[in-house]
Amino acid sequence: MLTELSLIQRIRATALTSPRVPLGIGDDCAILRPPANHDIVLTTDFSLEDRHFRRDTHSPQSAGHRTLARGLSDLAAMGATPLAAFLSLALPKDLLRTRPGRLWFDRFLEGFNALAAQYKLPLAGGDTAQSPSTHILADIVLTGTVPRGRALRRDAARPGDHIYVTGALGGAAAQLQTLFARPTNRGTTGPQLFPQPRLAVGQAILRRRLATACMDLSDGLSTDLTHLCQSSNLTAAIEESLLPIHPLAQSTPNPLDLALNGGEDYELLFTAAPTTRIPKTIAGVPIHRIGTLHPASGKRAPLTNTSTLTLLPPTGPARPLPQGGWQHLT
Amino acid sequence: MLTELSLIQRIRATALTSPRVPLGIGDDCAILRPPANHDIVLTTDFSLEDRHFRRDTHSPQSAGHRTLARGLSDLAAMGATPLAAFLSLALPKDLLRTRPGRLWFDRFLEGFNALAAQYKLPLAGGDTAQSPSTHILADIVLTGTVPRGRALRRDAARPGDHIYVTGALGGAAAQLQTLFARPTNRGTTGPQLFPQPRLAVGQAILRRRLATACMDLSDGLSTDLTHLCQSSNLTAAIEESLLPIHPLAQSTPNPLDLALNGGEDYELLFTAAPTTRIPKTIAGVPIHRIGTLHPASGKRAPLTNTSTLTLLPPTGPARPLPQGGWQHLT
Repeated sequence: MLTELSLIQRIRATALTSPRVPLGIGDDCAILRPPANHDIVLTTDFSLEDRHFRRDTHSPQSAGHRTLARGLSDLAAMGATPLAAFLSLALPKDLLRTRPGRLWFDRFLEGFNALAAQYKLPLAGGDTAQSPSTHILADIVLTGTVPRGRALRRDAARPGDHIYVTGALGGAAAQLQTLFARPTNRGTTGPQLFPQPRLAVGQAILRRRLATACMDLSDGLSTDLTHLCQSSNLTAAIEESLLPIHPLAQSTPNPLDLALNGGEDYELLFTAAPTTRIPKTIAGVPIHRIGTLHPASGKRAPLTNTSTLTLLPPTGPARPLPQGGWQHLT
Repeated sequence: MLTELSLIQRIRATALTSPRVPLGIGDDCAILRPPANHDIVLTTDFSLEDRHFRRDTHSPQSAGHRTLARGLSDLAAMGATPLAAFLSLALPKDLLRTRPGRLWFDRFLEGFNALAAQYKLPLAGGDTAQSPSTHILADIVLTGTVPRGRALRRDAARPGDHIYVTGALGGAAAQLQTLFARPTNRGTTGPQLFPQPRLAVGQAILRRRLATACMDLSDGLSTDLTHLCQSSNLTAAIEESLLPIHPLAQSTPNPLDLALNGGEDYELLFTAAPTTRIPKTIAGVPIHRIGTLHPASGKRAPLTNTSTLTLLPPTGPARPLPQGGWQHLT
């Protein structure tokens, strides 16, 4: 039987520490000491069983990795340096009271800690409880630091800016299709199971002042770019031929759909002035221009009187691109 | 039907703003700008239906109030000034798709916002999802600020220190007993339904340098004081006749048990050097001395070779006081 205290002790025993966290797990609050003249950025993300992962398709290591990766990707989108993580976990009875359950938990922590170690990220707190249902419930809080006033935001893009993405799109959704078709929780690699948050890219974009706006691709390009456009009061045109489609998506019947609407790629979407020279790779990650931003009214992208986004196919007419991404509550 | 976006819009429409939160709901992260030479304190607490509240005993306003009060009480325990809150909510289908469900959610927000308004607390972010079960799942993150290095902690108490509590004990558990005996979710007052976090007291204790250690009473005095003793490597003796027992607990068959083990009072437990003069009230809240701290070995409190805590009854022999408080996972 894992009690709340022994659960916390197991978590605490494996957590990294940091001089920027003078007090971590074990008090009413953790204490964080950011560097002078820096802002704190903070994000929180649920990882709920059967909503964000499944025990029959995701290994416990993958569930742990993804729980942390979701939050780190939000820090990457702000150009932030990770400061501390907080993990809240509610585990169902079977996980607390059986040996396979405790193994599941240990491997979840293993996946979580392996990614945390990559970024020397201390786990500074959280909460534990027994789940009221049979579902594993996790919520992750990530904090980071950015030089004061310099965080990358999604509301500062301008008309005429070029639109870029890191890496390739559709891979996470393509791997999920495969996992749903033949459920196995033994996968140890791939963009769905072990997405790599683009922290070094985000930090380089901030440091080199390359972007006007930036966000991460968690819900799918069509949904996320719509949000960026709405935040900046703009519209966008995407050139289909410029989309970097992930090899796993290429080999499916619907590569374009997965690249546009697939979600969970955790790549960065950013915009830059047309005069800014954007390198072909940043921090070793390929960067592709995929389109252009336009005003929301007046001189607009083709068709955008009916849609925030327009897709320009290699041949044939432009067409409106509706939001087709992941909507957690539908 | 409440979609994720409309849920966020409803939350956003009612949230307060603050100059210390230059960017709130709507980006990948919120941005917090603490005052210079201050530490950030951070706490996170689940509020899960059927673990931390029940729909048949707690009104939605109470559930919203308690969700926030839990976190604010942790800030109070550090002596912190609230900076920003983050609310993650996973709602089951019935709440999203029916009119009574939407009303429940609106009233939950009402209870949450009423308490937030008391402290001019901005809601700066969070997450939303559909609950994978029939349970309402909430997780609250609270951030606060304290002058650098000055946060009240639970690991700095010393042998000989006096032990104090704010307010009265056992009221929340007594009211819960009543609610369990005759379930009704129409209660609009009381220490179980609407606990008042002791922020002004915590801040005054910090400002006036009164305490050597401080924590909040969430799990019950016997459990929480044990944790304080363990953090500071001490033992404690409680004088039964000094315990301030809440009137609601006085009228039950088991007032002492509720005061010692009841939990959820969200009062402050603090320790002070015997030479420090502690006023009878702080920020209008009565303060009572309830006992004394002793070394963990060597000169010890009576009986503490078998127990961290000793209870001294008005007459008769001292007896060991085991942890009898709330254990979320048992």
